Amino acid sequence: MQIAAAYYTGNKTFSVERTSAADPGPGEVQIDVAYCGICGTDLHIYLGHMDARVGDHRVIGHEMSGAIAVVGEEVSGFLPGERVVVRPLDHCGDCPACNRGHQHICQNLNFLGIDTHGAFQEKWTVPAHTLHKLPDGVSLAHAALIEPVAVACHDVRRGRVAAGEDVLVIGGGPIGMLNAMVAKQAGANVTVSEINPHRLAIAQKLGFTALNPKETDVAQAIQAATGNKGADVIFEVTGTQSGVDLMTAAAATRARIVMVAIHAAKPQIDLFQFFWREIEMIGVRVYEPEDYEAAIQLVASGQIDAETMITNIQSLEEIGAAFAELSGNPKAMKTLIKCKAEG
Amino acid sequence: MQIAAAYYTGNKTFSVERTSAADPGPGEVQIDVAYCGICGTDLHIYLGHMDARVGDHRVIGHEMSGAIAVVGEEVSGFLPGERVVVRPLDHCGDCPACNRGHQHICQNLNFLGIDTHGAFQEKWTVPAHTLHKLPDGVSLAHAALIEPVAVACHDVRRGRVAAGEDVLVIGGGPIGMLNAMVAKQAGANVTVSEINPHRLAIAQKLGFTALNPKETDVAQAIQAATGNKGADVIFEVTGTQSGVDLMTAAAATRARIVMVAIHAAKPQIDLFQFFWREIEMIGVRVYEPEDYEAAIQLVASGQIDAETMITNIQSLEEIGAAFAELSGNPKAMKTLIKCKAEG
Repeated sequence: MQIAAAYYTGNKTFSVERTSAADPGPGEVQIDVAYCGICGTDLHIYLGHMDARVGDHRVIGHEMSGAIAVVGEEVSGFLPGERVVVRPLDHCGDCPACNRGHQHICQNLNFLGIDTHGAFQEKWTVPAHTLHKLPDGVSLAHAALIEPVAVACHDVRRGRVAAGEDVLVIGGGPIGMLNAMVAKQAGANVTVSEINPHRLAIAQKLGFTALNPKETDVAQAIQAATGNKGADVIFEVTGTQSGVDLMTAAAATRARIVMVAIHAAKPQIDLFQFFWREIEMIGVRVYEPEDYEAAIQLVASGQIDAETMITNIQSLEEIGAAFAELSGNPKAMKTLIKCKAEG
Repeated sequence: MQIAAAYYTGNKTFSVERTSAADPGPGEVQIDVAYCGICGTDLHIYLGHMDARVGDHRVIGHEMSGAIAVVGEEVSGFLPGERVVVRPLDHCGDCPACNRGHQHICQNLNFLGIDTHGAFQEKWTVPAHTLHKLPDGVSLAHAALIEPVAVACHDVRRGRVAAGEDVLVIGGGPIGMLNAMVAKQAGANVTVSEINPHRLAIAQKLGFTALNPKETDVAQAIQAATGNKGADVIFEVTGTQSGVDLMTAAAATRARIVMVAIHAAKPQIDLFQFFWREIEMIGVRVYEPEDYEAAIQLVASGQIDAETMITNIQSLEEIGAAFAELSGNPKAMKTLIKCKAEG
């Protein structure tokens, strides 16, 4: 069957082409993709930062929702028509990380939509073990948020956020904002530090204390608001030296810093503060199955404000324009690509 | 009563003076100091790095052993003649850290022997709540190691070292070597990275894999020895950029890096590896009461090889020479000052 697929073709370009849908092999399932969100990693790919990994003819995209079209051989428990999301991680099962139960950080991980083809196409064929079923009632547009919400669930879980704790999120982009929302659902008092005025306004609308570090000494504000205690959990989501400076300056004794950002450069870190206040820093990457289940519940129940997060929906044909818009100083929070042409 | 006390008087000098022993007030105990070891922090003070904190007429020293001389009013549970060590931390009881049960990192901590007078004197008066009793049989010389062993017990506990794990200790000075010894007692396979040949020889004698990073690619050696897994727990005890580079290069997925060194500068850290392998970094400072109890058992039982660690014992009058010797490229591991003149 011929379908439309959007290929990243290098240097800020996409080519939407007609291609054959991949038939599902044994253990695989073919999905009619409904929506697929644009991730920060997709933007990095678009900007050419990951060409060595993805090449110049790759269907990217992994924040998706859809319905099962065809079930391959040796797959049980799934039926055509069932609505699903994909946890886009295929592990090797035989490396030290897998052997210790950390399949999500497998040392030979195949990230679907980066290392192999992804979801910016009408039909996507994936291993059945990557599927999570959707409950009735949740819309497929909202369900496209489940992947990034699962990231936030993993981050908040790894940071051991507890009710009543003071949380600082440094960087209010989509992942930072979802970290803030999930931490708030866990009962935390959340402050978001962000410089983009559109995102500051969204943070305020969502009920967070929103501070602009260009106008306010955020560390001082946190210390003042907490009786000189500091933030119990800090999410560093900026990937900048100033974010890293703030994370230690705002930390309470025994604070947990969750390192969400992917730092390409090696920033300077105030390790003296790690000693002085017995700070912990916790690396986080993607999610585990339980994070997906938690995210599905948060999105399906409406505890994540999906309508505020989804600021734009565009067609597969408009994918180039959607990426161009997001790669500037965006007003958008989360843009979804509608992959299913007919409706 | 007149006693001898060694005062740090600035710029690499000590003055051994006759002074009045402090009478114990309510809640205090006066101790006949037997031995007091020289700590890395004492060396920093000696070199003038901490003059703003200690001034120029301070009795320093805190790695001590002794016997109770006089028990003050309002003290119960202690008798003259009982052999004790001091956990040299006096907390305020009223800051956010104390309120959350982290008295050892009290935000107004009085570190005895730094912020107030310490143990390089014949008699030392301290709050009774800082005392731990010694079991019969342990020598007072060996007991002077309990404070640094408690540091290592705290570090190993915070690092959650488990039996069978691969541990890398970066820096084989006294604290690094004690980290290695305590980790080995916990059942770990321990490698020590160190450049000083005297210390490499001691590490080998103690049964550790001893590597010189100037001769061997330590990260590569660890990966090769662990089937491309890496070290499960890494203790960074050098305080250098090269130590910080090695700690991420040698780390397994989900490794715990215990930040033991006090970094005065802000090194550059490969945060990408924290993301990629979900590494944790754990700040550590001093110890809690349970670490002291663990250290007392390890020293009293002989599980810590005190004879190999204690390479030098000098008199209070020789304190200046002892510090001068240690501040170079030392052959010594741990130097004790014998504070009790008579025997």
